[in-house]
This record gives sequence, C-alpha cells and structure tokens, in this order.
Amino acid sequence: MQNFVFQNCTKIIFGKDQEQVVGKESVVFGKKILLHFGGGSIKESGLYDRVITSLTEQGLEIFKLGGVKPNPRVSLVREGVTICKENDIDFILAVGGGSVIDSAKAIAAGVKYEGDVWDFFMGKAQVTDSLPIGVVLTIPAAGSETSGGTVVTNEEGLYKRAMGHDSLRPRFAILNPVLTYTLPVYQTACGITDMMAHILERYFTNEKHVEVTDRLCEATLRTIINNAHKILEDPTNYDARAEIMWAGTIAHNDSLGVGRIGDWASHDIEHEISGIYDIAHGAGLAIVFPAWMKYVYKHDINRFAQFANRVWDVEIDLNDLEKTALVGIAKMEDFFRSIGMPVRLSEVEIGEEHFEEMARKGTERWPIGNFIKLHEKDVLNIYKLAL
Amino acid sequence: MQNFVFQNCTKIIFGKDQEQVVGKESVVFGKKILLHFGGGSIKESGLYDRVITSLTEQGLEIFKLGGVKPNPRVSLVREGVTICKENDIDFILAVGGGSVIDSAKAIAAGVKYEGDVWDFFMGKAQVTDSLPIGVVLTIPAAGSETSGGTVVTNEEGLYKRAMGHDSLRPRFAILNPVLTYTLPVYQTACGITDMMAHILERYFTNEKHVEVTDRLCEATLRTIINNAHKILEDPTNYDARAEIMWAGTIAHNDSLGVGRIGDWASHDIEHEISGIYDIAHGAGLAIVFPAWMKYVYKHDINRFAQFANRVWDVEIDLNDLEKTALVGIAKMEDFFRSIGMPVRLSEVEIGEEHFEEMARKGTERWPIGNFIKLHEKDVLNIYKLAL
Repeated sequence: MQNFVFQNCTKIIFGKDQEQVVGKESVVFGKKILLHFGGGSIKESGLYDRVITSLTEQGLEIFKLGGVKPNPRVSLVREGVTICKENDIDFILAVGGGSVIDSAKAIAAGVKYEGDVWDFFMGKAQVTDSLPIGVVLTIPAAGSETSGGTVVTNEEGLYKRAMGHDSLRPRFAILNPVLTYTLPVYQTACGITDMMAHILERYFTNEKHVEVTDRLCEATLRTIINNAHKILEDPTNYDARAEIMWAGTIAHNDSLGVGRIGDWASHDIEHEISGIYDIAHGAGLAIVFPAWMKYVYKHDINRFAQFANRVWDVEIDLNDLEKTALVGIAKMEDFFRSIGMPVRLSEVEIGEEHFEEMARKGTERWPIGNFIKLHEKDVLNIYKLAL
Repeated sequence: MQNFVFQNCTKIIFGKDQEQVVGKESVVFGKKILLHFGGGSIKESGLYDRVITSLTEQGLEIFKLGGVKPNPRVSLVREGVTICKENDIDFILAVGGGSVIDSAKAIAAGVKYEGDVWDFFMGKAQVTDSLPIGVVLTIPAAGSETSGGTVVTNEEGLYKRAMGHDSLRPRFAILNPVLTYTLPVYQTACGITDMMAHILERYFTNEKHVEVTDRLCEATLRTIINNAHKILEDPTNYDARAEIMWAGTIAHNDSLGVGRIGDWASHDIEHEISGIYDIAHGAGLAIVFPAWMKYVYKHDINRFAQFANRVWDVEIDLNDLEKTALVGIAKMEDFFRSIGMPVRLSEVEIGEEHFEEMARKGTERWPIGNFIKLHEKDVLNIYKLAL
C-alpha cells in the first residue's frame, strides 16, 4: 500500500424529498447564485420549480444558465465565467448529471483565473482556488458530485480533456433516487457502465498489497451488477435506484483508490471517441474496457483471475488461470450487452477512419495508463480490438 | 435504505514516516497546543520526541498532559479542560490510541462549556462547539481518529458513557502502520476485535435494502480476518499492518453505517463490564458479541445466514438456515479464540456477582440496542450466556 492523503468533505444529503433543503444548504455560501442546468427534463419533472422555490425562500438572487449538453462544451463554460465575473456570483448550483456538474466546476475554476479557462485543461495553468459549488444530482453515473475532477470538450478541434483540484469538490450533494425514475433506460445503463468503469480504473493497479480497497471495489461492483437489471425492469424500484445511486458516488469519491495508482487509460481512450463522435461516455466505456482488458490482461493474470472470481463468480481454474481471467472479461462483456450497451465500435457505426488521429491525439501529451503505459501504437491496437 | 446525511472531513495522512508533517498540519489551527498522550510507550519508541521536534519547528507553544489510561477517566479530562481554559489553548493533539483521542475529545468539548464536562455524558447538556483536535494514531482499534464520538469513564460509580458531536471529528489523523509494530500481541488482538465489533454493530440492522453497505461491511471484515494472523505471526509485516490500520478507520468513519440504524447494544453491554473491571474493551467485546448473537439471532435468521456465508464462507444450507447462522457465530467465536481473545467471562475471572448491577446500570436511561430492544432482564440473560 502506498502512502496517501485522503480527504473528502462533500456533505451527502441522501434520500427521498431531500432537494427541499437546497436553499438552506446554498445560502451558507452567499447571496448570489448561478443556477446551472441542462435541457428541459428538470423543468418537465417539476424539479426546476422546486429548486427555484427553495432558493427563493432563502432570499437568494438567482442567475440562470441552462443548455449544458452531454460532453459539456468550453464555450458555455466561458459564458458562465463571464456571468459570474460580471455579477459577483458567490456560489454555483449544478442541477443535473455529470455534464452539468463538470461544466459548473470549470466555471468555478475559471472565475478565479485571469486567463482562459481552457488553459487548465491543457496543463498550461493550475487551479488554486474556485467558487464553491453545490449539486442536486439527477443522473447517477459520473461520480462528479463528490469528486474534484471535471471533463470538458473544446469544440475547436474536438478535444475532450480532464483536470482537477480539491477546491472543485462540491460542498454538498443532494442525492434523491426518486429523481432518477424518469431516466431513459439507455441513459440508466450508460450511467451504470460509467460507475463500474470508475471502479475498474482503480482496481487494475500494479500495487500488490491493497486488499481492503480491492474488496471494497469488488463489493461495490457486485452491488451495481446485482441491482442493474432490477432498475431496468422496474425504473421506479426505489431500493435498487438507491443502491445504484449511492454506489455511483462511492465509485468515484476516491475512497476506493487510496494507497494505489489507478490506470485511467480506458477513460483517455474513450474520451477521444466521444470527443469526435458525441457518443455517450458510458457507451464508449462499455466498448473500450473489454478491448483494453484483452490487450493488457497478460500483464497480471492473477489480478484478472481474482476479478473474474470475486466479481463474476468464475471458479478459479488453478491449472489455467488465463482461462479464468478471460472468462471474467467475457462475463463483463455479456453483462454490458445484457443491459443494452454496445461492446463494439461497429455496433454504434464507428469505423476505423479516425483511429490514427484519435490514437495520436490521445497520446500526444504523454503515454497513457499506469497498469501498462500505452503509446500511440498500443492505443491504435486497442481501437482495432474494439472494432 | 433510509434517508441519511453523511459528511466526514477528517484529513487522513496515511503511511510511512507521515508523523513528520504533524507540526505543519497543527500550526494551521493556532499557536498554543495541548499535547495529550498516555504512558511511556511513545517516549520509548521515540515518537514523542519526533512529534515535539515537528511541533517546535513550527514555533508552536506546547502544553503537555500525559497519563491517559485505557478507559479514560473524567478526572483527567477535567484537568485538561482547566489547562486549556487557563492558557487559551487553540488546538489539542492526541498522540496515542482511542483512549487518548477520546480523552482529547472530551477536553475539546469541555473547554467550550461553562458547566462540568460530565454533563455531556449524562445527557444533561449537548455539545455545540469544541476545540479542533488532531491525531497521531498508535493503536488501530477504536476508530476514534475520524469519528465524532467519545467514551469516558467516571470513576465515581464507575460509569462508562459515550457522547458525540460532529465538531469532535479530528481535523486530521496521521496513520503510520510502522508505529503499530511494537504493540503487544494481546493489544493488537483487542484492537482487531474492536474494529470488527464496530462493523458488526452496523451490520445487524432491521433495514432491508442496504446491499452496498452490507457488502462494504463484509469486505472490510474479510480483510481484517485475513490479515489478523499475519500480523500476530509477524508484527513487522508492513502490508498486513497497513490493511488492519486502514480497515480500523473505515470500520468507524460512518461510511459503513449510512442508510441504516445500527444496533450498538453489545457496546453498551460491554461498557458496563469494562466500567467495573477495567478489562480491555476489545476483550470485553469478544465475550459479549457471541453471547448477544446467540440471544438475538432468531430475530433475523436470514441476516445471520448471510453473515455466515459472506464473511465466514459457511455454505448456505437452505434446508436449515438456522444451522447456517449458528455455524457463522461459532466460526466468529473460533476466530476470536484463535487470536488469543477470551470469549467467556469466566476466562477472565469475572463471575456473576455484579450482573444485576451491570444490567440495571446499562438500561437505566433507556432500553438498549436497535436490532432488538433489550431491557434489564435481557441484558442479564446475555451476561449469563457470556459466563
């Protein structure tokens, strides 16, 4: 186990009707609030009105910025930065899923910076401070509600890039599983895949003695797997929605990654796909992860066999650990299929025409991944395996 | 899953040599520091000197209060409160195990209160604010390093009582597994039992849909069980010490108890024993828990069968779930024995002479436990089962 520092101060407010406290939780941070959101779904569900009511009851002055799209764009972030600077905004409230939260985080960082906010994503500047953020979560997936990270797409060149800082962790996150009842089946499945991917990125490490975090990862994965079909079959199953929603937060609150270095190549590889094709991040991960696994599993067959056994109930064949490992990967692929995810690029009509460009862009700053360092040709091979 | 609020801001600084940063972490909170500790072991190990050096380097004015005993006494707490009030202390640093931390917490609360600090423990007053606390942990057991709770004994009448408040969560906790190498075998085993008990108290709940927390509890228990013998056989096994130390913190940082109501009767039942007999808390728990389980398991045989299967690898006998449950309890008892813990009061030469007094005192404020509410006669029966 490596030395580590862990601190996650986000106040989790979990359960039915909890969005009613959003005004009381927000007013702590000031008087002027930027309400940041996506499209019309929160208006249709009535959530938007309930949030406005709660904020207004606390005497908050509300500035509104909607229109966040999946794979949030830096142009809207820049617009948000301008609104915040011109109006001396104290606090940003993100109502939505990971894209809205990530967009809010980028705005929060940009407000405290003189230059262009995209600098943070290109490694040209480091965040040192940011506006406080709060969250009302509507999509369990990205785990952005307690993380310090954000992923934004620059439409000039279709670059999708991540950055992070501890000051970007939301101060509170309101998680009401009922708000997720109306999520379309496909989006629910994408969220499930995304949260599983967050755990897998941490699970595949070269650190040898990380038993407690291994087991916590496996526990969370098993819970997600066990509840996925329950909510796809009955979208209003509160208990299953609650398990998935809480698991999605645990998956990315950093508690599962302490004492080890995670991999994160699959996220980088996927970002190049969804940067160009505007495919849902979760669907992209369901395609990339099996391919990545098939490309790297020989690096540590024992770890893949453990994964197969403890997560997918594959009996360990001591005479053929490689087979055990491969059955585990196949079971994961089957699971993704069973919840309606694509597992090959061809299934979402993506061909090889941009493979070379994506492999180059994905590795142009440095080789990616930590389990095995992947260079341009490796990433290209993984795209081919995913075809 | 019940609605819940979860926030744990303690900054964890984990790993080799990490006590070197204690001065830098402490100076954030002020200039005058109360250094609180127990007996001579931290002086013998050199830790005391290293801490003093680190604090001095930051220009901190150090006030010292040693002499905390296991089952910390309110008399020393009162002494600490007086020192802090008279010298305008800004910050309390606890160097030691759960007793030292709990004593420091009680002092921290007492400083901000006009009346006698024992009022908090008797429910006569509520903590609203307290001095900030930091921790250098030397005994993985109590989990007090990130919890908001404290347990103190009043030597007048030998009352051992708990209280808690969020402001009592330490601001930072330094966890260096190397500092635990010199712990005696018996104390190590007591700590292991204590952390397992913290998980068991949360695990046995009447809440039905708590899968992710169930599985996280089981994951942490399995890690503890799997590493216990490794450190008893080789006290300087860093990897196993690290697993146990981190598991001990996870066991009691409240993440395993969200969305459910834990039981906590066994802790109350044990407190009456160690309040009178000055037996180690962990040893008391190894005696009480099996007795409590045998008294209550019929209330939810399925949950006990799940515990047997997932934690102790007992095959589920669908035709005799009660047998499955009982084998699980027996396996836990065998495990406690295997690490040198007593599992009966008679093994530590405690007879029934105080049973009635302990059962009366333990239930005089209210019936205890939540899995099943236990009244005076139930607690008496459990003491008899533990004989």
